[in-house]
Amino acid sequence: MRQAGRYLPQYRELRGKVTLLEAFHSPEIAAELTLQPIELLSVDAAIIYSDILLIPEALGMSLDYIPGKGPVFGNPLRSEPNVERLRIKSDFEDKLSFVSESIRNVKSKLDSSKPLIGFVGSPWTLAVYMIEGESSKSFVNAKTFIYKEPDLFKELLELLTEAVTRSLKLQINAGADLVQIFDSWAGLLNPQQFSDISLASMKEVIKNLDGSVPVIVFAKGAGHSVDVLADSGADCLGIDWGTSLSESRKTVNNRVALQGNLDPVVLLSNPEKVREETIKVLEAYGKGNGHIFNLGHGILPETPVENVKTLIETVRSESPEFHKES
Amino acid sequence: MRQAGRYLPQYRELRGKVTLLEAFHSPEIAAELTLQPIELLSVDAAIIYSDILLIPEALGMSLDYIPGKGPVFGNPLRSEPNVERLRIKSDFEDKLSFVSESIRNVKSKLDSSKPLIGFVGSPWTLAVYMIEGESSKSFVNAKTFIYKEPDLFKELLELLTEAVTRSLKLQINAGADLVQIFDSWAGLLNPQQFSDISLASMKEVIKNLDGSVPVIVFAKGAGHSVDVLADSGADCLGIDWGTSLSESRKTVNNRVALQGNLDPVVLLSNPEKVREETIKVLEAYGKGNGHIFNLGHGILPETPVENVKTLIETVRSESPEFHKES
Repeated sequence: MRQAGRYLPQYRELRGKVTLLEAFHSPEIAAELTLQPIELLSVDAAIIYSDILLIPEALGMSLDYIPGKGPVFGNPLRSEPNVERLRIKSDFEDKLSFVSESIRNVKSKLDSSKPLIGFVGSPWTLAVYMIEGESSKSFVNAKTFIYKEPDLFKELLELLTEAVTRSLKLQINAGADLVQIFDSWAGLLNPQQFSDISLASMKEVIKNLDGSVPVIVFAKGAGHSVDVLADSGADCLGIDWGTSLSESRKTVNNRVALQGNLDPVVLLSNPEKVREETIKVLEAYGKGNGHIFNLGHGILPETPVENVKTLIETVRSESPEFHKES
Repeated sequence: MRQAGRYLPQYRELRGKVTLLEAFHSPEIAAELTLQPIELLSVDAAIIYSDILLIPEALGMSLDYIPGKGPVFGNPLRSEPNVERLRIKSDFEDKLSFVSESIRNVKSKLDSSKPLIGFVGSPWTLAVYMIEGESSKSFVNAKTFIYKEPDLFKELLELLTEAVTRSLKLQINAGADLVQIFDSWAGLLNPQQFSDISLASMKEVIKNLDGSVPVIVFAKGAGHSVDVLADSGADCLGIDWGTSLSESRKTVNNRVALQGNLDPVVLLSNPEKVREETIKVLEAYGKGNGHIFNLGHGILPETPVENVKTLIETVRSESPEFHKES
């Protein structure tokens, strides 16, 4: 999960010296933050320290992060002139060159046995943020935009599908070993809309990558669509904590690997409970290959490091039993 | 859906004269607000104007509604002494007598062809509000309470199961023709937890009612559990907008009726779109009986009345075709 470092004192120390935007834009700081969980906890993979909203920023939207409030776009996309303004210009890749540089910095220091994960937000999820402009309780603006401005919405989604593809290609060219697409707002759509809107555009993105690297799709709140997601072209599906891992395994029936799905709030309890719930996740997937242990959503900043260590130790000690040849 | 009146100018006029708590506590105002949608729009059933949090209030918690923020409990249940304090005392029914009186007032004026629906929050959903104390983004307090205080949580859930049962019996005795249990926070639990915690306590409540009136269960965000919900003892399941109505019908296979599930944001678009999406819901359920048309969550306060009228007209004109004997 991409917010990997926030619970680490070492993260907070380094982050305290700069703004969030500065941290994302600095290839040195971003690389250091990317490597912290590897150095301190020896996790199995690194995920580039970045943010899904840097794509809309590169498209010309003014992005800011307000402490205690989260990301804010100063000029949300509510009407035609606002959408019309957005174009993918020829300098799009130049504007994201700090991401390539962060990735190259990380790769030069990362042990070759540890893969580096690049990532993007899905076209639908980016559209939600760009239309709302800030966090929302009911996301009424984004959801009604689909009904009220169907042509404009289609145009926006196509634009974002291209931008997302180009950002992923840039990350792969810089050295990302695999990539993950976060559809954080999949759960705002009903199953039919999810398939028509978000899944369709993610499929397009995956097709555009031409199998160059493995792709993980994490569609939060889309437990209803595991079956169709297994045919999206992705190699692995992230399963959120609200979805049954055992049912998902039956549904995908070896078409894709599964990643997940410990509820991040378990990490706020105590080591004994963490161990117990971690084993439950291993048992839910069951014996055999095709499971990447992970959380079922982003780690909470207030998580005690001790509990993360217990989680990692438990997976290390208990999971081999599940991968034995039977 | 219980927030039925908020979009009506007549509702806002009457509500503007009192606080929300005064409106709930006044049997005259509550009865008038209950009847408004019947008088103005001629909907098929009335639902008592009330709130799920009046049970915790009757248990001794201090409840307030802060404009722009929502309900707040001054003393949330975070620790043992706070939970210990709560007891169902012999005057519990007396403290809710205003609900009985509201129901009797409504029944004296309501056309006998229109049923009156009573309701409660599920034990789990009430526990969430009582532990959090106010609205939350991640509901970390309620979710970790399950892990950190398992015995205390069990005690709280048992207490609420009894309180919810007694509130429903009181509403039924006063004249409610059927009742609905709102499990608004079902989606905070994973499928196993939902079954062990929320569904188990709702089953207990339904069993306690002994089949006296039909029961509808609306478990928001529990689309993964339609199958087990169909065996909960409920006569009808509310299906939220994020869950497929056609899949749900296949799953329940005539064990229960289904209610739902138009996405409330559709009502913010235009009459043409409302008509189109309403017909899609009728088609999703398909031919035959066992479907109660409804929204898939509460109506949004900013909904234009014109769109609600279009919805009702469309259901009236189009649904008979679906109920024809084939």
